[in-house]
Amino acid sequence: MEFDRERFEKQIRFILELDKEKNIFRQTRLSGHGRRENDSEHAWHLAAMTWLLAEYSNEKIDVAKTMLMVLLHDVVEIDAGDSYAYDPKAQQSARERELIAADRLYQILPGDQGAYLRSLWDEFEEGNTPEARFAHVMDNFQPMLLNDSNGGEDWSEHGIERAQVEKRNTRTAEGSAAIWEYMREIIDRNVEKGSLRDSK
Amino acid sequence: MEFDRERFEKQIRFILELDKEKNIFRQTRLSGHGRRENDSEHAWHLAAMTWLLAEYSNEKIDVAKTMLMVLLHDVVEIDAGDSYAYDPKAQQSARERELIAADRLYQILPGDQGAYLRSLWDEFEEGNTPEARFAHVMDNFQPMLLNDSNGGEDWSEHGIERAQVEKRNTRTAEGSAAIWEYMREIIDRNVEKGSLRDSK
Repeated sequence: MEFDRERFEKQIRFILELDKEKNIFRQTRLSGHGRRENDSEHAWHLAAMTWLLAEYSNEKIDVAKTMLMVLLHDVVEIDAGDSYAYDPKAQQSARERELIAADRLYQILPGDQGAYLRSLWDEFEEGNTPEARFAHVMDNFQPMLLNDSNGGEDWSEHGIERAQVEKRNTRTAEGSAAIWEYMREIIDRNVEKGSLRDSK
Repeated sequence: MEFDRERFEKQIRFILELDKEKNIFRQTRLSGHGRRENDSEHAWHLAAMTWLLAEYSNEKIDVAKTMLMVLLHDVVEIDAGDSYAYDPKAQQSARERELIAADRLYQILPGDQGAYLRSLWDEFEEGNTPEARFAHVMDNFQPMLLNDSNGGEDWSEHGIERAQVEKRNTRTAEGSAAIWEYMREIIDRNVEKGSLRDSK
């Protein structure tokens, strides 16, 4: 294969662009009551979890494809920033900013790679394939696990209530009934001890 | 499939253990003269780079396997800490600490998963398969790219010289001749402008 310098330099430009994701911080705290987590750490954790927990997907998934999907699912936040899951106003305006970000970011890459990664992100956003459904389970389960390991402080700090968490997880059981069952136990336990407000 | 609670809880314990990798900091600075990078961010970047640059591997590689390999190649540093690539004393003592760490960490998992991930780490350490060779290219190229984007300050700060970088990369061309060619240009450029000391 002949070396295509222009192609390679596009890939390098995208790789350096990705580096910025390490500066996008989320609301979730690391276990051990640590600092806030950033997007790249979150994505790394999801990719490892996808491999480890794939057996609990309701449907058979392409594990490698799902790993790539979660690795890059937050790339658009380089431009659009992180929008807190329980801030409906931020969530609403985020969509528009993220679409503009996707247009800018994926066109840095050579056409074939940019188009594939864009389609993978669209698939994640739509959430209508086995891989996308499982990726969303990971995306919701990981911060809940960290939060639970910290006694639910991410919830108590923001005064979150059970109905909000359940609403965010409306489709989680479609991706993994087993993991959703475990997540419900975490929710119940945190309501019981008061870190998550009960809903009337 | 029946849900095996004990198996699931082992997986969750390992996932929470992994979280600690976000607190292991390396010498490399993020682009934009940023803070030091941690192991999980580094591993995330390598996994994305593996997918993006696999076409430059000298030999055909199993991309998904290589991604998993790089995602978890530094897990042992949770116990053993990061050893600076240009500190030979730290490098020497690290090996022993890393083997003890591997024994502790992989046995947290269910037997099948622990054994597979341990064998993947051993394969990386030995560096004798196409996947391991390419994983090492990524492991050496990524910090060089970030460092070069910062004008080579990681090298100048530690007074590193060309021969040290070349020694570290003795086998890089075996994994990817094309990427090694590009890395040599980075080395030359940094020697020219004085951020990397020339070797007599």
